[in-house]
Amino acid sequence: MSPKSGTGTVYLVGAGPGAADLLTLRAARLLAEADVVFHDALVPREILEHIKTARLVPVGKRCGRHATAQRFINQRIYEAAREHRIVVRLKGGDPMLFGRAQEEIAFLRRQGIPVEVVPGVTAAVAAGAALQVSLTQRGVARSVAFVTPRVGEGERASGWARAAAAADTVALYMASGEAEEVLQALLAEGKAPSTPIAVAESISRPEQSLHAGTLAELPRLAARCSGGPALVLLGGVFADAADQATAGCGRFPRSASQAA
Amino acid sequence: MSPKSGTGTVYLVGAGPGAADLLTLRAARLLAEADVVFHDALVPREILEHIKTARLVPVGKRCGRHATAQRFINQRIYEAAREHRIVVRLKGGDPMLFGRAQEEIAFLRRQGIPVEVVPGVTAAVAAGAALQVSLTQRGVARSVAFVTPRVGEGERASGWARAAAAADTVALYMASGEAEEVLQALLAEGKAPSTPIAVAESISRPEQSLHAGTLAELPRLAARCSGGPALVLLGGVFADAADQATAGCGRFPRSASQAA
Repeated sequence: MSPKSGTGTVYLVGAGPGAADLLTLRAARLLAEADVVFHDALVPREILEHIKTARLVPVGKRCGRHATAQRFINQRIYEAAREHRIVVRLKGGDPMLFGRAQEEIAFLRRQGIPVEVVPGVTAAVAAGAALQVSLTQRGVARSVAFVTPRVGEGERASGWARAAAAADTVALYMASGEAEEVLQALLAEGKAPSTPIAVAESISRPEQSLHAGTLAELPRLAARCSGGPALVLLGGVFADAADQATAGCGRFPRSASQAA
Repeated sequence: MSPKSGTGTVYLVGAGPGAADLLTLRAARLLAEADVVFHDALVPREILEHIKTARLVPVGKRCGRHATAQRFINQRIYEAAREHRIVVRLKGGDPMLFGRAQEEIAFLRRQGIPVEVVPGVTAAVAAGAALQVSLTQRGVARSVAFVTPRVGEGERASGWARAAAAADTVALYMASGEAEEVLQALLAEGKAPSTPIAVAESISRPEQSLHAGTLAELPRLAARCSGGPALVLLGGVFADAADQATAGCGRFPRSASQAA
């Protein structure tokens, strides 16, 4: 709007789990007012429709090209902030949970660009809402671990499996593609093969689906996913979710509030 | 609106961390359309201003009276759903994380009342946004535990401290009132006294504040809280948060996007 050099602010904005009406009011306002929006490949089209006048720049990253791609994205966001007033960096879910936000924040701060972060609804709580299963329950679950088995290029494997084993409820992000390795790591840390699980795909979207069963069945259930963003949920609280699904695999209905 | 017996739906809605514009679009729409809204004591007045025509019923619970109070709340929500079309049960943060939602869901389902859950922004990610510290960072933190040391009346203590000790990043809900016990439990599980921490109070609200330091300083930092909802954050990712705060205690500014 006012293309005065160096006056822009970069807003790292959580797009939420997928449904367009699970954006926050603040996120929707920023998308409507933005001059430029850089967005991940995961952000659905219905959310991008909140954008009124902004130039839209897709910046999806491909596996194995992370470092180079991130430097390129940082530079483009910086240049946009030098030219525009409101620059939005839109990320699926919440920016501060598995959103690789810190690299962008640190770079922009070093360049003297003001940054603000707008939190969003993360996939794990949206999955709990869709399943109507509380991730915490008095007497059953007082701890929830959000973990990912994904590590960056050249990084050592992390203690994610130990953190998962110690928690009552677990949400595994970006895990469905490595189901066999995840299963073996969790069993090695002492999780029982009979632990109830739910594999939730495309949460809050019209095409959302649920595959429920036990940890031992993870590779089979994960193989039923059809390419949407998927989350693996584990723990005693999901025992009912497994009961509800027919023969260990079911599609659960789009909620009435979305359909309305 | 249409007071036909037994036709209402109960929406368990997350109010988010506190700022009125961190409601989701869906939550704001339901508040505007609701016939009755039952809300926790934690939900700020600015959020309740989204309510247009609904009857507003505060149902805050006091410690030690949980079971009785919950039965009473269940019954009132049920009766409202028998008389009204849209009944909202509004909870601070996200309903499925430390929101005691399962008791209400189970009761309403047994009575044949349709229930939907609308997820919200939970305090821990809002604290990460306010601090501009990602809870996960490649090479530093691949696991985040959300835990509470609070157990219900007559329940045994849970393994929350073990779950916290095993995770790279920890968000402790409802912990600032028992800081000394929390400190001793975490040290006993092997967390280093030098672990960076941040005590974040009234996150996303105009009066939000941050007290940063190390785990060993938790009782002293928690004592500086002034009665708002507080979250204790731990882990290597908060090293910079501690550096930023002056003399281990600081108030961080209301973000420009809120002030605008």
